[in-house]
Amino acid sequence: MEEKLKTLVLDMAKKAKLASRTLMQLSSSVKNEVLLKVAQRLRANKGYLQEVNSRDVNLALTQGLSPAFIDRLTLSDKVIEAMAKGLEEVAQLPDPVGEVVKMWRRPNGLLVGRMRIPLGVIAIIYESRPNVTIDAAGLCFKSGNAVLLRGGKEALNSNLALAEIFKGVLEEMGLPQEAVQVIPTPERKAMEYLLELEEYIDLVIPRGGEGLIRFVTEKARMPVIKHYKGVCHVYVDEAADLSKALSIAVNAKCQRPGVCNAMETLLVHKAIAPSFLPEVAREYAKYGVEIRGCPETLKYIPYAKAATPSDYGYEFLDLILAVKVVDSLEEALSHIAQYGSNHTEAIITENYSRAMQFLKEVDASLVLVNASTRFNDGGELGLGAEIGISTTKLHAYGPMGLEELTTTKFIAFGDGQIRS
Amino acid sequence: MEEKLKTLVLDMAKKAKLASRTLMQLSSSVKNEVLLKVAQRLRANKGYLQEVNSRDVNLALTQGLSPAFIDRLTLSDKVIEAMAKGLEEVAQLPDPVGEVVKMWRRPNGLLVGRMRIPLGVIAIIYESRPNVTIDAAGLCFKSGNAVLLRGGKEALNSNLALAEIFKGVLEEMGLPQEAVQVIPTPERKAMEYLLELEEYIDLVIPRGGEGLIRFVTEKARMPVIKHYKGVCHVYVDEAADLSKALSIAVNAKCQRPGVCNAMETLLVHKAIAPSFLPEVAREYAKYGVEIRGCPETLKYIPYAKAATPSDYGYEFLDLILAVKVVDSLEEALSHIAQYGSNHTEAIITENYSRAMQFLKEVDASLVLVNASTRFNDGGELGLGAEIGISTTKLHAYGPMGLEELTTTKFIAFGDGQIRS
Repeated sequence: MEEKLKTLVLDMAKKAKLASRTLMQLSSSVKNEVLLKVAQRLRANKGYLQEVNSRDVNLALTQGLSPAFIDRLTLSDKVIEAMAKGLEEVAQLPDPVGEVVKMWRRPNGLLVGRMRIPLGVIAIIYESRPNVTIDAAGLCFKSGNAVLLRGGKEALNSNLALAEIFKGVLEEMGLPQEAVQVIPTPERKAMEYLLELEEYIDLVIPRGGEGLIRFVTEKARMPVIKHYKGVCHVYVDEAADLSKALSIAVNAKCQRPGVCNAMETLLVHKAIAPSFLPEVAREYAKYGVEIRGCPETLKYIPYAKAATPSDYGYEFLDLILAVKVVDSLEEALSHIAQYGSNHTEAIITENYSRAMQFLKEVDASLVLVNASTRFNDGGELGLGAEIGISTTKLHAYGPMGLEELTTTKFIAFGDGQIRS
Repeated sequence: MEEKLKTLVLDMAKKAKLASRTLMQLSSSVKNEVLLKVAQRLRANKGYLQEVNSRDVNLALTQGLSPAFIDRLTLSDKVIEAMAKGLEEVAQLPDPVGEVVKMWRRPNGLLVGRMRIPLGVIAIIYESRPNVTIDAAGLCFKSGNAVLLRGGKEALNSNLALAEIFKGVLEEMGLPQEAVQVIPTPERKAMEYLLELEEYIDLVIPRGGEGLIRFVTEKARMPVIKHYKGVCHVYVDEAADLSKALSIAVNAKCQRPGVCNAMETLLVHKAIAPSFLPEVAREYAKYGVEIRGCPETLKYIPYAKAATPSDYGYEFLDLILAVKVVDSLEEALSHIAQYGSNHTEAIITENYSRAMQFLKEVDASLVLVNASTRFNDGGELGLGAEIGISTTKLHAYGPMGLEELTTTKFIAFGDGQIRS
């Protein structure tokens, strides 16, 4: 049984590697044609997809899974249309493959450059969200990579049905169907075997809970790009423009509190706290934000709860906010270095030197001056669609778009050069 | 005992992380001053270093280690001068840290860019070659990273003495000595503990034998950049300029056969084999190269040995060469895809379309047209000093210079932007 599972996974990985050799060479126009056809097919097969999906959903319901879980699992009309639109958008994005990033001539006449190429085979491990199957497959395909998809077991039927539609288009166009494969079994062991196949898989991207990400990090022999939690801070400096600070603090916390680039802790300079804190508290009250503050905060927001030490560095993903009054920019920087998650950090100030110091010294995938943390997103930063926001420093730090799914090789044009 | 070792390694990693926060902010001029002082100090302490080194060498001699091993272990006058010169060269190289790679304005006015920053803490695991201690420390320091060094146990005393000199300069200049640390114990367990500390170590670079690299890949929870073997091919196309083909084939094999970018297999198009093979064989005979050929090769070089299947894809690192006659560029490409190691591949041809096809289709860290494989080297390609040649596709594919020891973070200058 175990042997059979091992063989199944190995065989899929080998076929993915083989398919990747073809994908590497595809022209952008062929790739775009595939994406547009898949989008069309998703819309045309909506009824079938929803029928298959309802089996997954019904089983999840009998297992008593939460409404939020069921919501993510469901292929509603809206979700199917969003998947189709997403593919059409990816088709519009420039193809990074083949770009020569830089080129220079060496003293001996050798013309040397770096050319963008696909990574090869990417494995994506994700929660029970079937839309990720199509979103991830689209981005990997456009960037010339084969993809092995391993979604949450509750979504298995839906994921297989979605992959079938992609494969159908690939077959029709004479392209290798193994470019997009869903691991067809719910067993956890299958994932473990997959993570050993460094010879065939170039990168694994785990998305989901911290436990899953740690498990993948421990087991994987190939590079892992992590999308960990976001404990994002906004620091309101003493020289902040109060109206900017106010609208950014509200936007960063309230516009969509359940996502990784929402603010979790607000740091306020003591000189501005007396004027800023009561005002921002009034705004937060309108949204029902629960404030957990340090003793200094409680002076200005008497109805706030007292923060416990574990409230700092915590990802609430909810309308709950930790607040701390700090003595200086230095204290804010130390707090962020200790409690931040290298995700997104913002300073609100009109002071030039402190803005530049914050920008230089904070180690996070995105550091902002006078703008909301919510901008840490591929679309918002101008990269187009993204596969997630990496908090791993290697290869891709921040939103991962098409370019981040490629690497560069060196190329050299000579006319007989030898080394002396 | 095990607990004590664990605590020691953890403590070193924590201190390295702390030091990295200071290193991140250092100006280029301070970093260069350190490097130049260390170079000076190495020369001034030559006698002391050689005395300590002789203890390592004597022990290795009593253990009957090979002359090549002893050679790599010895801190000769020449090696010490090369280390000092190396540091002076690194001081001359441009500092990648702080470079803003790209900057663009979003429709909402947000000015977004990518700024180059150090990785943080880098662990280097290497053979018993004490010069790597200084070379690696110099590159990591210049790129703003703290480094944890774990060399072969036979070189431990030498490595510690070299690190002491670096630390002395750091102390004098009021900089954290934990920027450069040598793991002070030969136990293998220490390395295992190190590889678990993903929270403090951002990257591990193993150098050395395949066994060691596989061990590190399996155990490490942080990203690993591998410097595996180089099984490099030269393909002599039917349209090759024979004199270029001849000098490149000789240079790629004979100029320094023991290194990873030397050619291991020569592929020759059948149309050119009758004229090229006897001629290149005469040249190889002058160098004492042993030829192991396919049946077709033996027709033109009767005194060659018959190649066994395992000769293809083998890294001889010696004056031994596998030769194969192929029917077409396609056969050469398939051979390289099957037996190559993603390191360095070259085509010799005057045919434009085949040159471009080879360049596009071959997946290797460097692909050359009409030049020797020996050019896969940071210095030769114009990157300056390098820490090795990565065959890992993620983050750095090819020679790793200073820039490859950094990453980029996103920065954004706003004037109050919020997300709607």
